[in-house]
Amino acid sequence: MPPPLPVVRTVAELRAQVAAWRRAGERVGFVPTMGALHEGHLSLVRLALERAQRVVVSIFVNPTQFGPNEDFDAYPRAEARDVELLAQAGAHLVFAPGAAEMYPEGFSTTVSVAGVTEPLDGAARPGHFTGVATVVTKLLLQCGPDVAVFGEKDYQQLQVIRRLVRDLDIPVEIVGGPTARAQDGLALSSRNAYLSAQERPVAGQLNAILRTAAGRLRSGEPVAAVEADAVRALTEAGFRKVDYVEVRAAGDLARLGPGPIEAPARILAAAHIGRTRLIDNLAV
Amino acid sequence: MPPPLPVVRTVAELRAQVAAWRRAGERVGFVPTMGALHEGHLSLVRLALERAQRVVVSIFVNPTQFGPNEDFDAYPRAEARDVELLAQAGAHLVFAPGAAEMYPEGFSTTVSVAGVTEPLDGAARPGHFTGVATVVTKLLLQCGPDVAVFGEKDYQQLQVIRRLVRDLDIPVEIVGGPTARAQDGLALSSRNAYLSAQERPVAGQLNAILRTAAGRLRSGEPVAAVEADAVRALTEAGFRKVDYVEVRAAGDLARLGPGPIEAPARILAAAHIGRTRLIDNLAV
Repeated sequence: MPPPLPVVRTVAELRAQVAAWRRAGERVGFVPTMGALHEGHLSLVRLALERAQRVVVSIFVNPTQFGPNEDFDAYPRAEARDVELLAQAGAHLVFAPGAAEMYPEGFSTTVSVAGVTEPLDGAARPGHFTGVATVVTKLLLQCGPDVAVFGEKDYQQLQVIRRLVRDLDIPVEIVGGPTARAQDGLALSSRNAYLSAQERPVAGQLNAILRTAAGRLRSGEPVAAVEADAVRALTEAGFRKVDYVEVRAAGDLARLGPGPIEAPARILAAAHIGRTRLIDNLAV
Repeated sequence: MPPPLPVVRTVAELRAQVAAWRRAGERVGFVPTMGALHEGHLSLVRLALERAQRVVVSIFVNPTQFGPNEDFDAYPRAEARDVELLAQAGAHLVFAPGAAEMYPEGFSTTVSVAGVTEPLDGAARPGHFTGVATVVTKLLLQCGPDVAVFGEKDYQQLQVIRRLVRDLDIPVEIVGGPTARAQDGLALSSRNAYLSAQERPVAGQLNAILRTAAGRLRSGEPVAAVEADAVRALTEAGFRKVDYVEVRAAGDLARLGPGPIEAPARILAAAHIGRTRLIDNLAV
């Protein structure tokens, strides 16, 4: 039985605990989440534990990063189970604020990142990354960790966070954690809970098709043909709508030429099955 | 002779010194400036020294808060003299970064505040407060002070900073310092150096006219009439253009009704003499 894991709901309590650890000379790690935790999140907690003596996990389903027609209300919430999983994984504190603690009366400040936020999910989900950038800035400044861990599954988000942390001089090290996957390659996601039994095998094809595409890019095939073939393959596999399959520069997500890749790249995709939108990405 | 005052140009040096002070248990105060220092700035340094054992002053003429037709190039720069004045005032460190330290290649993040930035100087100087909010966020996170002092002379800016610090959870106490004035009431400003001998006595009328207006408001006269009379008086005194004279709620700068004031208010004005734009404000 792991020891009971404290859950705090205010920034004041969070800061008091972090300050006490820091006075004791301990490094503090931080893993921000929206809850509904799975093995992907837990792998990030373990990564944080390798780099810090104490690990804080936040659980906050941030309304400002959901569009008006997105799944904010439906997004799975399972705090009691999340806390149990985090205790087993060895986390030391859960910060689970309410919306009023995060966005008090009169809240009116936003953090925006240009460039890296514009293509891909930035184009498909207007306003999404401003919501992410603002809440992540807040969470990092509320907690004040030495190191914060974010999943590579949300690869564009990770690049946005790296950029805003550098640009705003937030004193924290950002670490990306590898994507955890099911046996068929499906990236673990809280949104996989939306998939029906019929949809679940189709979902696994997203990763299989990206693996095939990445292999072709590595053997020198041109970007434009590989992208087009992957979109076609997703549609044939049963995805109802493909938001994008794009090969981009690994760091700033700049567009590449249509020919063979010449520098570190990433292939990223977003596609819909039924009411579920899935994303995935691979290094090339 | 005060001891020589160290000047550092990188965030790394700034943080190393602040961390050393903090390890020694000392509180750190911070006064961000654009240099060309006068008694107003020095009064803020003294205020910081009352609240912290160590005081850092930054000198950075921030290009992003100047509009394309404003006075960025002409803005007075006098670093050697500034450092001498700060040594005499008892400051402990000057942080004077270059533009490349503040805005490295690929910089693309902005902090925006809605509401309180929109009227007054926000309307007269598009983009100004986004430049201010972004650079102040950076400076506060670079230095990491316990307390930061800003002048009430830039009253709207002070309210913008209070808002963004609260909204983004920047762990610092913000203190406003009273406006230092010349004998005739002119608010001290680095831009007063632009005034010719003919313009200087006219400039003093800005404060005199606001004092008269504030007195009338205190005795219950209606906002609309007092504002209109102050605009007329400024024009008659020789101001070439009046950007605004407005009475607003002291905290969020919300517009008031046209009648007598009923809660803490502030009267704020901006007006031009020749090529010089002056601002001032008073509590009502």
